[in-house]
Amino acid sequence: MGKSIAACLCFFSAACLMAVFSCAPDKADLVKTGKINTGEYDPEAWGKVYPNEYESWHKTRDPRPAGKSAYKKGWDTDKIIYDKLSEYPFMALIFKGMGFGIEYNEPRGHYYMREDQDIIDQSRTKSGGVCLNCKTPYMDSLVKKHGKEFLKMPWKEAVAKIPAKHKNLGATCIDCHRESDMDLRTNRSVFSEGISHLDKKEFTRQEKRILVCAQCHVTYNIPKGKKGETMGLVHPWKGSKWGDISIENIIKFIKNDPKYLEWKQTVTGLKLGFLRHPEFEFFTRQSVHFKGGLACADCHMPYRRAGSVKISDHNLMSPLKDDLRACIKCHPEKTEELRSQVLAIQDRTVSLLLRAGYSAATAAKLFETANKNRDRDFDRGLYEKAKDFYLEAMYRLIFMGAENSLGFHNPSEAGRILGDSIAFSSKSEALLRQCLAGAGIKVPEVVPLEVGKYLKDRGEKKLNFIKNQEFRDPFAVQEKLIPRKQAGF
Amino acid sequence: MGKSIAACLCFFSAACLMAVFSCAPDKADLVKTGKINTGEYDPEAWGKVYPNEYESWHKTRDPRPAGKSAYKKGWDTDKIIYDKLSEYPFMALIFKGMGFGIEYNEPRGHYYMREDQDIIDQSRTKSGGVCLNCKTPYMDSLVKKHGKEFLKMPWKEAVAKIPAKHKNLGATCIDCHRESDMDLRTNRSVFSEGISHLDKKEFTRQEKRILVCAQCHVTYNIPKGKKGETMGLVHPWKGSKWGDISIENIIKFIKNDPKYLEWKQTVTGLKLGFLRHPEFEFFTRQSVHFKGGLACADCHMPYRRAGSVKISDHNLMSPLKDDLRACIKCHPEKTEELRSQVLAIQDRTVSLLLRAGYSAATAAKLFETANKNRDRDFDRGLYEKAKDFYLEAMYRLIFMGAENSLGFHNPSEAGRILGDSIAFSSKSEALLRQCLAGAGIKVPEVVPLEVGKYLKDRGEKKLNFIKNQEFRDPFAVQEKLIPRKQAGF
Repeated sequence: MGKSIAACLCFFSAACLMAVFSCAPDKADLVKTGKINTGEYDPEAWGKVYPNEYESWHKTRDPRPAGKSAYKKGWDTDKIIYDKLSEYPFMALIFKGMGFGIEYNEPRGHYYMREDQDIIDQSRTKSGGVCLNCKTPYMDSLVKKHGKEFLKMPWKEAVAKIPAKHKNLGATCIDCHRESDMDLRTNRSVFSEGISHLDKKEFTRQEKRILVCAQCHVTYNIPKGKKGETMGLVHPWKGSKWGDISIENIIKFIKNDPKYLEWKQTVTGLKLGFLRHPEFEFFTRQSVHFKGGLACADCHMPYRRAGSVKISDHNLMSPLKDDLRACIKCHPEKTEELRSQVLAIQDRTVSLLLRAGYSAATAAKLFETANKNRDRDFDRGLYEKAKDFYLEAMYRLIFMGAENSLGFHNPSEAGRILGDSIAFSSKSEALLRQCLAGAGIKVPEVVPLEVGKYLKDRGEKKLNFIKNQEFRDPFAVQEKLIPRKQAGF
Repeated sequence: MGKSIAACLCFFSAACLMAVFSCAPDKADLVKTGKINTGEYDPEAWGKVYPNEYESWHKTRDPRPAGKSAYKKGWDTDKIIYDKLSEYPFMALIFKGMGFGIEYNEPRGHYYMREDQDIIDQSRTKSGGVCLNCKTPYMDSLVKKHGKEFLKMPWKEAVAKIPAKHKNLGATCIDCHRESDMDLRTNRSVFSEGISHLDKKEFTRQEKRILVCAQCHVTYNIPKGKKGETMGLVHPWKGSKWGDISIENIIKFIKNDPKYLEWKQTVTGLKLGFLRHPEFEFFTRQSVHFKGGLACADCHMPYRRAGSVKISDHNLMSPLKDDLRACIKCHPEKTEELRSQVLAIQDRTVSLLLRAGYSAATAAKLFETANKNRDRDFDRGLYEKAKDFYLEAMYRLIFMGAENSLGFHNPSEAGRILGDSIAFSSKSEALLRQCLAGAGIKVPEVVPLEVGKYLKDRGEKKLNFIKNQEFRDPFAVQEKLIPRKQAGF
């Protein structure tokens, strides 16, 4: 009897202990590593060892559910490729003079990153081989094989140098992973060079989960020679720090050397630098999520179950299109509430982006008027100052217009940069109005922007304005400053 | 032997069960309620039943640790009362013409809210009895007793009507609690009237934890009669909704009726409305914390232990001065990391606030020039448009300058409002420059603001600029637009 009580209690103790530990989720099996040959580019070979990751990576080919994101609708089940110049018509005016002013689409998934370059208006690949930097995993090996000449090689010729089987292969396993143990690493010498200018040499695994994405989701400049030929590719980070690559420092970098003036803006006749999708710079500049210790992969590659293992989801997308699965892990609100928080931030950014865009467009048209009247006697000092303020405005505007989160990656920094852009372009407008009036040139209260003219018959495809894609100011403030009917659609 | 094993295992089971439950914190006793007479104003009487809450409420008298907040230093252990006009010198220029342009201090704790009115330059209480609305718990009973005349009664006369014992009593128990059961309720008929215009009639306890604070932390207008006499007090919320009282709707309200034009701005000669500390409106307009279900009290009155009970801390203050005790409950980062997150947001807001402030100041000085040259033949249409844009800018600027969180309560909304303020004032500047140049009036690139003039010899106390209190732009952008040495300090 004693023994049976003891046995009974023993069972109870065990049950009790099980109860204690039953809170822990069912533990996932460890991902098994296997042999990948050094320098293996082929994702299929990696896929044999890591079938779950491979499968999820391959899904970037699939369209996303439509209607989940208000502002980023690149490749959804509606199969429409959205035209950024129709979404933000001021961009057609300010980008006139370069490829972005001809065809500028919201991007499709990673799967299409290389082949979309063949489809887009070829003005966009005018810089040549350099445009492959982020598009093919072979970039460094191509430069090694063909020398620096590869960078300025005519586009089609450069594409033909990619091994035929992988001509259309975009970002792939080898770009982010070391073959031997899957550790994270980067695969772009240009990027390593850029990062070397920051004050940081060692990176934690969590920081590497930012760096691998940053290889491509960054801004860069293509220095040009005297005849406009491509001289290389650099990231404008000299003098910046980890967690503090400011727009101010980037502008200083561009302004510091005329070789970074990559294009001439048609409307103003000014030579300007350019900025691209600065997700890395913008997110890491003291955003709430960055300061909270998060990496890109936490939100864009959340862990998910694949059978008995747990994998980082390689089917990258906006969390909005994934029903905020990544967000819910830390923010246990309802999906629709989280979505509306994101939208509240994006609405505000879009509103300011329109303000900054049309303000820069207004100043641009005043430069055009001033330039047509070069012979008139207006104050050159004011004109030069207006030019300097305009450049300050433009670089901030291009930066925020290219950033792919509509401010969400760093909401208050978005407000700061766009607010400053507005301050600079409006000041430019003010000085130009004074110049012109002083020289007896009449300017109406609302400067005719002739937006319709810039949207029409663009490039080889004769692209036109798609009215229903335009984003209107969610707060209707833009209409007070520049009534739409006077913008010249 | 069997029994001893059984006993032993029995003990083990019990220990095991205790281990299971030891995760739960030591449960606090319930706060005991007791009898409070209906209409009991005296906090001492409430303190006898609720000694812990009373004691913590009384601590709003104590100064806060210095050096914890970068921008709100009203009443810290350094015992300095900070001068907002020295912190933000543009305010001396734009508020010239009303009390706020004479003496405008960062506030001390709740304990001093009534008596600080006696100490400040008396231009600030010119509207009379109405200024007591949020300062004494007796307000509604005084209006009931003395009629609507109380509102326009000369200030000193009105103060003398408060029961002598409680002449200096500020917000107190009865303002927020029902006597019988401590349930939350408000105690200002003006506020109830304001709230009745929203689309919401029933409030949860959590929403009431916003409403009790909102009784005072809101904007309001004092309609004026033909001779400038006080006609009442209203909240500009008609047509707005719960969670959506926008600056746009507030401006519409003010512009809709000239009786809300409370003061005349000296520099421009324009009549304007005024806005006050809109914490309620700003926080509830779709801020992240509001959408996350938080109330004012969650951050400013976090629960704390008082002996065996758990109380809402009635010693209200900025969480920054309380080592972010309230924040840590949801954000388990280190205190200094949280503090730097808050500071990153506030730095950006202050930067934009300076931009908006000096931009409005610039436009104001151009109006001054235009008004001095009334006889000159300039474009009246442009001038009128400039005036309208200027008002749009000013109301946004006053709103954000008065809000007490430097943007933290709603970071992206702060950027939006200040960005729009900059857009409107710069556009006003642009049109005025054109007007003036067209009429042959020379305007330099940087308009001399004569800021020093407005900061000097203010009011009865002959207040002056306190240089070391000035906030400079943390991003040094302001200096590019208006070099400080040209602002006329």
